[in-house]
Amino acid sequence: MTNEMQELGRNARSAAKVLAQANAEMKNAALRAMAKAIRASQTIILAANAKDLEAAKTKDLKSSFVDRLTLNPARVEAMAKGLEDIATLKDPVGRVTEKWTQPNGMEISRISVPIGVIGIIFESRPNVTADAGGLCLKSGNAAILRGGTDGFLTSQAVTACLQQGLKEAGLPITAIQMVETTDRSAVGEMLKGLGGTIDLIVPRGGKSLVARVQSEARVPIFSHLEGICHVYVDKAADLEMAKSIVFNAKMRRTGVCGSAETILIDREASQFLKPIIRTLIDAGCEVRGDEAAQKADAQVRPASEEDWSTEYLDAIVTLGLTDGVDGAIAHIAKYGSQHTDSIVTQDQSTAEKFLAEVDSAIVLHNASTQFADGGEFGFGAEIGIATGKLHARGPVGVEQLTTFKYQIRGSGQIRPT
Amino acid sequence: MTNEMQELGRNARSAAKVLAQANAEMKNAALRAMAKAIRASQTIILAANAKDLEAAKTKDLKSSFVDRLTLNPARVEAMAKGLEDIATLKDPVGRVTEKWTQPNGMEISRISVPIGVIGIIFESRPNVTADAGGLCLKSGNAAILRGGTDGFLTSQAVTACLQQGLKEAGLPITAIQMVETTDRSAVGEMLKGLGGTIDLIVPRGGKSLVARVQSEARVPIFSHLEGICHVYVDKAADLEMAKSIVFNAKMRRTGVCGSAETILIDREASQFLKPIIRTLIDAGCEVRGDEAAQKADAQVRPASEEDWSTEYLDAIVTLGLTDGVDGAIAHIAKYGSQHTDSIVTQDQSTAEKFLAEVDSAIVLHNASTQFADGGEFGFGAEIGIATGKLHARGPVGVEQLTTFKYQIRGSGQIRPT
Repeated sequence: MTNEMQELGRNARSAAKVLAQANAEMKNAALRAMAKAIRASQTIILAANAKDLEAAKTKDLKSSFVDRLTLNPARVEAMAKGLEDIATLKDPVGRVTEKWTQPNGMEISRISVPIGVIGIIFESRPNVTADAGGLCLKSGNAAILRGGTDGFLTSQAVTACLQQGLKEAGLPITAIQMVETTDRSAVGEMLKGLGGTIDLIVPRGGKSLVARVQSEARVPIFSHLEGICHVYVDKAADLEMAKSIVFNAKMRRTGVCGSAETILIDREASQFLKPIIRTLIDAGCEVRGDEAAQKADAQVRPASEEDWSTEYLDAIVTLGLTDGVDGAIAHIAKYGSQHTDSIVTQDQSTAEKFLAEVDSAIVLHNASTQFADGGEFGFGAEIGIATGKLHARGPVGVEQLTTFKYQIRGSGQIRPT
Repeated sequence: MTNEMQELGRNARSAAKVLAQANAEMKNAALRAMAKAIRASQTIILAANAKDLEAAKTKDLKSSFVDRLTLNPARVEAMAKGLEDIATLKDPVGRVTEKWTQPNGMEISRISVPIGVIGIIFESRPNVTADAGGLCLKSGNAAILRGGTDGFLTSQAVTACLQQGLKEAGLPITAIQMVETTDRSAVGEMLKGLGGTIDLIVPRGGKSLVARVQSEARVPIFSHLEGICHVYVDKAADLEMAKSIVFNAKMRRTGVCGSAETILIDREASQFLKPIIRTLIDAGCEVRGDEAAQKADAQVRPASEEDWSTEYLDAIVTLGLTDGVDGAIAHIAKYGSQHTDSIVTQDQSTAEKFLAEVDSAIVLHNASTQFADGGEFGFGAEIGIATGKLHARGPVGVEQLTTFKYQIRGSGQIRPT
């Protein structure tokens, strides 16, 4: 490991000790000071961003990538506002989540504490610097940020504002650090935990980044590789509700992980096929379907086996019939990604079966899969969505960025032999 | 991967689906039937154990190892009783741990669900087969057990009883499977997750086994490598209480992970040195100390730097002065293992500082570190103690062997654009 990375790790670890004991007022003051610094530095941030964009132009980058990299005054303001919003959230640290007294009089409390040091590995979006830094701070964690090289100067300018906010609030500026080395081994070192320094890695970016992190990380990660989300329309569904939910789940925003990629329709309700397909096609969605779907509408293209497990993140959907709720549950177990799946039905017991048996982080009844979002859960901002099974599942907000310890208060208790 | 291991994984995955929906009565009936089968098969189990022991004699094994491998009627009965005890625990699956309604009317519930498939890798103790199998079943998880080769025949005989209990209760016998292959790559395959089948690994055994699992596992693990537990005796401690807690923390049982390995005494209370050292030495404990400890009692041997980070698991302790509670907190951060640490003091604010700042799974005030045990927490049986930071910290009982999902009940809600 390079000396630079070692020092980064040591600094983060000692900042984490201070943050763990910092009270809510201090952390919130820092968040507000960060927002102020970002607003005051708008010109500097935009100038840094312009340089990044100029360098980006010489490369053969996708326009969507360049768009995500691009800042403007509104996006800078959104970063500042985001930090102020995080300041208004309830402090997630120090909550007594359970408390009981043992027969011998010992009082056991389970109390929320920060996780420690969190490494965030992201691609081009400069707002991740502010969002992730702010969420880590609020939850008492030190952050080590490693952004893509294409957004380097922008991230650096934003990080300077975050550190100024920390300084003004009397917190160590090393609470939020950016990896400044261009050494390509830096990400690898982070994934190995920086010599025991990093407690958790959160990747923010496309599938190839997440796949690399998932395959190489030797520390716990909160991530989802893909969101192959399903809407199952049961025979007992209200058709109008089904059309509305299917349309929203697929088309509200097609590029988010909670957007639906597959629509399953109860074989006993094949009359739903045509109107649901029309709703999608009329909205400009390409429909790839099984034989029944193709028969129902001439514009439906044949779905390949691969389509059923493809996350399009685009206005394309796979659609077909299935054998009732059991067929849907089996289909989702086979092709899904344990992210978010929804059933539309007026039959309560069918709904409960789906909610119980689909093994996904989020299961919904009569609601759109696009609710898979920390804000929609009332968590405030989220650092991402996790599909792993342990600790955090679903939206990862500030509360999910804490762990706990047991505090035991006694009066001289010893354990009997 | 061998076909045998692949099949094991597939079987476990499909058993897990059934277990996740099995109700408490069914699981408890299986646990009681397992206990009955173990009692009925006592002769068979002891005969298998005798063969294992005979083979063990030809090897150069430690007597403590052979003792752990050895069964007798009382130990067989303890296995059966342990399963019945697990049956009496509250069902950890299906608990609604949080529930709220969003402004748009969606009702969000956070509900406990099984983790899925748990791999248990253990050494010679045959009771782990029954304990771990029973705890996994109670929490709705399928178990894949891989025991040490020295206890192979015993584990096989016990597993047969567990499967008989599953069968009698109408549950799939593949809910608890034993790795029967002698292929040495089996453990490695489990650590890699058996092709996505295993959700969690729990190692049960000595430090070398846990170290291997920690370094090779590509799936989450619940484990602790060692328990370097501290007792800090503050200047405001009641000396009699301090002696009692130090004695119990070190000497009640020296071989458990919650036994104290280091005693720190406030420099401003050096008069405590002599009586505390005497309490230990009179009980047959070897004391390795700093200069002050050596001066206080001629029988104290000098402690090396290594001693401060050594888990003796024996009647040996490292002891020395430290600069008050801040010195103790810093010492524990440097040498500890984030397992279990205790402060003895009558000063409430000093105690609160220690409880807040020591970053261990379990922190105690005026109580013995030997309370680090699921039973002592009121959890019932435990599968182990975890010192990782995520999901489970401290004792891992049936509740900690569950995860959760969000169930959302709506009435047609779609997400606004």
